[in-house]
Amino acid sequence: MSHFFKESNSVEAVNSRIAADIDPRLKEVMTSLVSHLHAFVKDVHLTQQEWDIAIEFLTRTGQICSEERQEFILLSDTLGVSMLVDAINNRRPPYATENTVMGPFYVAGAPEREMGAQITLDGKGESCLFEGRVVDIQGNAIAGARIDVWSDNADGFYDVQQSGTQPKWNNRGVFTTGADGKYTFVGIKPVSYPIPHDGPVGKMLVALGRGPYRPAHMHFMVSAKGYEKLVTHTFVGDDTHITFDAVFGVKETLVAPFQRIDNGEAIWRSSFDFVLTPIDLS
Amino acid sequence: MSHFFKESNSVEAVNSRIAADIDPRLKEVMTSLVSHLHAFVKDVHLTQQEWDIAIEFLTRTGQICSEERQEFILLSDTLGVSMLVDAINNRRPPYATENTVMGPFYVAGAPEREMGAQITLDGKGESCLFEGRVVDIQGNAIAGARIDVWSDNADGFYDVQQSGTQPKWNNRGVFTTGADGKYTFVGIKPVSYPIPHDGPVGKMLVALGRGPYRPAHMHFMVSAKGYEKLVTHTFVGDDTHITFDAVFGVKETLVAPFQRIDNGEAIWRSSFDFVLTPIDLS
Repeated sequence: MSHFFKESNSVEAVNSRIAADIDPRLKEVMTSLVSHLHAFVKDVHLTQQEWDIAIEFLTRTGQICSEERQEFILLSDTLGVSMLVDAINNRRPPYATENTVMGPFYVAGAPEREMGAQITLDGKGESCLFEGRVVDIQGNAIAGARIDVWSDNADGFYDVQQSGTQPKWNNRGVFTTGADGKYTFVGIKPVSYPIPHDGPVGKMLVALGRGPYRPAHMHFMVSAKGYEKLVTHTFVGDDTHITFDAVFGVKETLVAPFQRIDNGEAIWRSSFDFVLTPIDLS
Repeated sequence: MSHFFKESNSVEAVNSRIAADIDPRLKEVMTSLVSHLHAFVKDVHLTQQEWDIAIEFLTRTGQICSEERQEFILLSDTLGVSMLVDAINNRRPPYATENTVMGPFYVAGAPEREMGAQITLDGKGESCLFEGRVVDIQGNAIAGARIDVWSDNADGFYDVQQSGTQPKWNNRGVFTTGADGKYTFVGIKPVSYPIPHDGPVGKMLVALGRGPYRPAHMHFMVSAKGYEKLVTHTFVGDDTHITFDAVFGVKETLVAPFQRIDNGEAIWRSSFDFVLTPIDLS
């Protein structure tokens, strides 16, 4: 009767119960999950009371989720899991632009705009000229690249968070490169903002002595035929939260220049080139 | 800027963010959790789509929870985590009776009954005489031990699952030992039953090729001054699910004899002695 559960054989007791004929990938993932989960419990000698707290925490995390809020994604983000999954699945060659997390505020279907267009519709914030090129690893222009951009407004909220007060598609737009691979548009210098922190994840951050802020960033999703889709941000380097991003999204190579220009057209200018990876290299 | 997140330093990037002055035990638990969670993601090379499925699964698991249902406890149970926590926190010397999981159906405040009393109030099932002694590791009787018992009815449901149809406190009772340490009461030979399996955990069990059944068992909680509280079951050994308990609660030492007696008083007899561990040994 050695197949019964014992502390010493706990992983085997659970994993040996998985049927032989199930999806092999599911089996691989679940046996690894059980193994790591049990190792965690054993390593910290989890108490019954701590287990109670964990059950209660996970339950509240699920129950606060709604159409507008995904607390489990926040949990994944704040434990670095989202960034890790992104990193593992988007390993890039040197010089190619790195990915970072998509975040929960992307909305498909933003208006396609002419190069140079203004995307800030609420008139708030310090205007900023974003410009650069979409190129391949050799530096050749990529024509027909689609650039989907989105940022918060000057108050730190995305349009979808304030659908009653912000204009629809505020600080969003889609641009397509021409033969020169260049892009340019006018938005605002983004501002830092806290992730939603009035729920279980916010309480966890407080208990860990961590802050809820994300440093200011502009989102870019760049896609072109024959190249890996790039989902990334550019960050405002002098943001006080730059080294304390609550979701660990900052990468050194994604910190962009924001140069004060005050030229009448805009107060700031941020130049950044996106280097795409050919699909056959990935 | 090496403190930014990279795949190669992901655990350190997250754990180094924890403040120095927080509760040391919380720090110990969370740093270990992050380390094991990241190791899992790396070991299986979790894809973005699998991460999406996990987020959705956890969300549904939280959202199905209610006053009457705790799906995260079911998840913990079916992954062997509940039994592991129980095992780690209730290591016993040889010969002492082993713990197993409490389960979700315990209700405090069951009626105190005289030794020998009938606890089955719905008249269903095959009656069974439960008897034995509460003793210490040397075999000495423990007087004044409180024995709280509960089981399902012949249809496989606890009274609290059918509060409209089963009599309150059906198949429950509390007994206190006298100087001889003996206990005896009449209930039914318990029957196997499935854990709730119409939710996310049930879907997981199907995907893993596992069944939802628990083998038939009688719950006992035995407490006496100076001894560790014992939370356990006795199992019906010939149950077809005995080696496939959905929550891994079976231990070899907890399989009890169920002997057919048909003596007019009862159809079955199950004798089992509970051996308590003195608190100063634990």
